[in-house]
Amino acid sequence: MREVFQQELREVRERLVEIAELVAVSIENATTAFNESNVSLAETVIADDTRIDVAAAELDELAINILARQQPVARDLRVVVSALRISASLERMGDMAEHIAQLARYRFPDKVVPKSLRGTFKEMGALDVEIARKLVELLMTEDVAIAEHIRNEDDKIDALHLSVFDKVLGETWKGEAIDTVDATLASRYHERFADHAVSISKKVQYLATGDWSPVD
Amino acid sequence: MREVFQQELREVRERLVEIAELVAVSIENATTAFNESNVSLAETVIADDTRIDVAAAELDELAINILARQQPVARDLRVVVSALRISASLERMGDMAEHIAQLARYRFPDKVVPKSLRGTFKEMGALDVEIARKLVELLMTEDVAIAEHIRNEDDKIDALHLSVFDKVLGETWKGEAIDTVDATLASRYHERFADHAVSISKKVQYLATGDWSPVD
Repeated sequence: MREVFQQELREVRERLVEIAELVAVSIENATTAFNESNVSLAETVIADDTRIDVAAAELDELAINILARQQPVARDLRVVVSALRISASLERMGDMAEHIAQLARYRFPDKVVPKSLRGTFKEMGALDVEIARKLVELLMTEDVAIAEHIRNEDDKIDALHLSVFDKVLGETWKGEAIDTVDATLASRYHERFADHAVSISKKVQYLATGDWSPVD
Repeated sequence: MREVFQQELREVRERLVEIAELVAVSIENATTAFNESNVSLAETVIADDTRIDVAAAELDELAINILARQQPVARDLRVVVSALRISASLERMGDMAEHIAQLARYRFPDKVVPKSLRGTFKEMGALDVEIARKLVELLMTEDVAIAEHIRNEDDKIDALHLSVFDKVLGETWKGEAIDTVDATLASRYHERFADHAVSISKKVQYLATGDWSPVD
């Protein structure tokens, strides 16, 4: 019985890693589609979001089933509850990748943002991709140093996010209203993507240390 | 023992209602601050968000404790797991109210959006307030008809959200880039607020019917 339970907990962790891998592929495709105006890649991301949603819902069902049948306590209980929360955040990360892809699709064959912002969005996109990959590693290893690293990368994204507004509100901004709208939304999606990763990192840290800090 | 457990489940439900009430007050204050450029009301909302965060974190601790001590199964288990999810959505609704209040504070003594958009944002704000109040009622009664009502109100908000973009991207738009940025963000916050309410409604419907539809 105990062994079945440990096997089920391993399965929960493996599935979280799998969903995180799907999210990492999606954000990579989404940011490429966004930066290079690749509409077929954008459509792939949009289609793949359903897979992420289904995988997250299935993981939730598994976790609730484990709670019902195994009635875990102490750390095991925290693992299962955290899995439910982490899956919700991963699902939202998938949504952010989809939103970024949708912007690329709407504006195709144009690029979403004007030249003056492309460097900034390339940097933000690369950071989101790196964070997503680190998140896979974090969920595999529960190594708290990776959680720390993700937070640092998130600080960089926050700074880039603010710099987008500086540019859009600066005197040299020549964009039309549509450019302003899209840059605002795109920047917000990139930033939220990383926020969710930080939120997951905190949950993993909590599992490792027992310290459950209040919600971000 | 059984009676203690039922009492604890009641407490979970009561606390959810309390947090929903805090959220309803915050969105009312936030939209008033936003529409009337009331900076002290905006500061109230920003301060109150911490109370919502703490209340949500405390509810989560209670729910996890119940899982550990009472090891609920079947419907009782779903109630506790749903409470965890609902508290996460309520916490985000508080964040959206805070974001709306922050826009009001940044732009004070100016209003956040130019005249041509004020009617639209008043409508969106009123709908968000109504949805928040209905949510309190829904959590009190678990009456599925209210969940239906919230979804219908959310459709109206989605339409208003799109109309903001129509206006901002239309030929008559005279706003500066800062107006475009703020209208985009404000509209998104109003819309997300309602989305979270719909997501909670689905969870309550699921509790009532047992039908857990995949994530939105």
